[in-house]
Amino acid sequence: MFLSKLTPVPKAHAIIENTIKQASIENPIEKIPLENAHQRVIAQDVTSLLDSPPFDRSAMDGYAIRAQDTFGFSQQNPVKLNIVDRIGAGSKSNVILKSGEAVKIATGAPIPQGADAVVMEEYTQEEGDDLEVALSLTPGENVSFKGEDIQKEDVVLGKNRLLKAQDLAIIASAGYSEVEVFRKPLIGVITTGSELVMPRPDIHDAEVINSNHYTIKAMVESSLAIPTLIHLEDDAPLVKKEFKKLIETHDAIITTGGTAISKGDVVVDVADELGEVLIHGVTLRPGKPFAFAQVQNKPVFMLSGYPVAAMVQFDVMARKHLLKMQNLERTPLLIQKTATRKIPSTLGRTDYVRAKTDGEFVEPLKIKGSGIIRSMVESNCYVVIEENLEGIGEGELCDVLLYDSLRV
Amino acid sequence: MFLSKLTPVPKAHAIIENTIKQASIENPIEKIPLENAHQRVIAQDVTSLLDSPPFDRSAMDGYAIRAQDTFGFSQQNPVKLNIVDRIGAGSKSNVILKSGEAVKIATGAPIPQGADAVVMEEYTQEEGDDLEVALSLTPGENVSFKGEDIQKEDVVLGKNRLLKAQDLAIIASAGYSEVEVFRKPLIGVITTGSELVMPRPDIHDAEVINSNHYTIKAMVESSLAIPTLIHLEDDAPLVKKEFKKLIETHDAIITTGGTAISKGDVVVDVADELGEVLIHGVTLRPGKPFAFAQVQNKPVFMLSGYPVAAMVQFDVMARKHLLKMQNLERTPLLIQKTATRKIPSTLGRTDYVRAKTDGEFVEPLKIKGSGIIRSMVESNCYVVIEENLEGIGEGELCDVLLYDSLRV
Repeated sequence: MFLSKLTPVPKAHAIIENTIKQASIENPIEKIPLENAHQRVIAQDVTSLLDSPPFDRSAMDGYAIRAQDTFGFSQQNPVKLNIVDRIGAGSKSNVILKSGEAVKIATGAPIPQGADAVVMEEYTQEEGDDLEVALSLTPGENVSFKGEDIQKEDVVLGKNRLLKAQDLAIIASAGYSEVEVFRKPLIGVITTGSELVMPRPDIHDAEVINSNHYTIKAMVESSLAIPTLIHLEDDAPLVKKEFKKLIETHDAIITTGGTAISKGDVVVDVADELGEVLIHGVTLRPGKPFAFAQVQNKPVFMLSGYPVAAMVQFDVMARKHLLKMQNLERTPLLIQKTATRKIPSTLGRTDYVRAKTDGEFVEPLKIKGSGIIRSMVESNCYVVIEENLEGIGEGELCDVLLYDSLRV
Repeated sequence: MFLSKLTPVPKAHAIIENTIKQASIENPIEKIPLENAHQRVIAQDVTSLLDSPPFDRSAMDGYAIRAQDTFGFSQQNPVKLNIVDRIGAGSKSNVILKSGEAVKIATGAPIPQGADAVVMEEYTQEEGDDLEVALSLTPGENVSFKGEDIQKEDVVLGKNRLLKAQDLAIIASAGYSEVEVFRKPLIGVITTGSELVMPRPDIHDAEVINSNHYTIKAMVESSLAIPTLIHLEDDAPLVKKEFKKLIETHDAIITTGGTAISKGDVVVDVADELGEVLIHGVTLRPGKPFAFAQVQNKPVFMLSGYPVAAMVQFDVMARKHLLKMQNLERTPLLIQKTATRKIPSTLGRTDYVRAKTDGEFVEPLKIKGSGIIRSMVESNCYVVIEENLEGIGEGELCDVLLYDSLRV
């Protein structure tokens, strides 16, 4: 089978989004130890079980005092106080501080009852139990008040957020050692092509090294999903059998190869037999022979065999949808740069031109062919030229998508 | 012990760099399967063992022909050729193509001897072994030539590069299924503090939740290193014993807590006993009580116990050096934004002000205290104010460091 008309890229996204929305992801949420939650997408709102700080505490190493006792005193005229207790981190003083008294206190320790400020060690002189304080303090000085950071019952973090280091700190401080996150989607990856072999120092006849095995694995991982990789020859019954097996145990399938709009390409035919092919060919360059199907209510992304076309198709047509499968919304961020030379484009195609940007300028690479892997290695961005543009003139501003901005 | 003078941030970096340069990292290079090399730092130059493509191959599904046979022909006046062979992907034709002949060919298959162009299927009509070609081709059209992407002996990738998906493709195409990378540094992380407990729904007396356990683990991981975490009470003999054990089996140590410039803080004293404390206190805010030591020729980063101070110290003083331990050079990229309001700063301190940027503007958060974790969660960047500045005025441009730009 093949569809005769190319699907415009925005319409293709709408079709894929709709399929993902309806997709059946089994047990989408899992509870994991907080220490494994870095770079996971949180599936719950986090309501604090605690106040943080849990008590009024000292923000400094010094002496807890009554601020009033120091009013009017200074370096020239220090006030004399009496040290009645000393508490380290993790300890608590039971004294009730009276006027004229001080408690030696470590950073983080609770302020004793009766005290309302902490004077830093630097401004004091201690001799035995006598203390001289050489400045006037205001009430609350160097005190972190109970609940200042988080109050009990506060929602400290909303769901659908990719967890960063600092997010883990606030979840911990809210009292949780475990957290609910969206399960990473399991992606079955099938590289097809009878000509493909694994890398080795010498290759024969019509053999081609299967570089997609490596790039698709890495790209799936960088989309926070878990790939299972298999390679198959261009044999329809075999592809059908393995495809059926893989889709049972995975949340989505990605294939490479076998999508060209011609006879003899097996992947799209197999997807058509097992489900419904919704897209076959998009207005994307490179990457036109992208196909997409819904099989057993799961999304199937069919990429080209050509390495560069497959990479562009993954970046443009698959990446954001894999993220969406774990409820992470990402829209690629386009920035504006000045083209160092003319970049031709064809009306009716969204072009992703490999380019190198440095400062305010962007230089398209001089390359041809969707098989040229080197162009992906030497570039650091795409120049994105929308369908309705006939190209970019030298010195004109254009839309640039940094490879680095695709990472999550 | 304590040093009485604060070390300026740039000088502190020079001291750390120098220590890392001399550091003894055992077996720094390891050979790993290429499929595990994504986000690793390559330790070798990659010289291609192969040409890629390995032969002149078809860039399209179509028919290999002699371009000359089509000269002058068109849609109105198609040329008639004779199909003498048909080859799929992974196959090779043994025919030597003569004038008037065509070989049906799949994308990627070798061009038969005698042919010099491929006509796309779309421009042909096949009936039995008769073929009509409805356009005039130029020699080389739709042919990917041998070595067009990579030539044998080419250096396709230099060492000290963080490997991206596309880099794996070129290493594979150069013939390698394994690659030498720098070993991930092993980092012993000691959180200290007798008051610290793991998260739980209720805490008592002077207990504080050990959020650093989670953030430092995540931050070390995001620096491509492998953390081992232990927690210890503020007990000098115990800290000394565990520190000695940990440093034997790790490439660096990071501690939190026990760095304040006062008595009773054990970590700096232990580092001083076991090695040499080179920095104790830096002109950084928040994060002044940062310390650094060289112990057994290994770097020891001593961070504050306060979560926010520890995060800033990690970002500013540790992150780039951990990356450098695996030969990755990263200088944080400052961008310019307009301050929405006045940001005060003190001469002689490098300020890292938590802020939120959106478009061209940056808004400093209204918070106080280095214990306020929420400020790290609600901000997305630092405003960096150098030592020689007394602050930023409303509407002035200032240096901004995006949290996202710290990722590798």
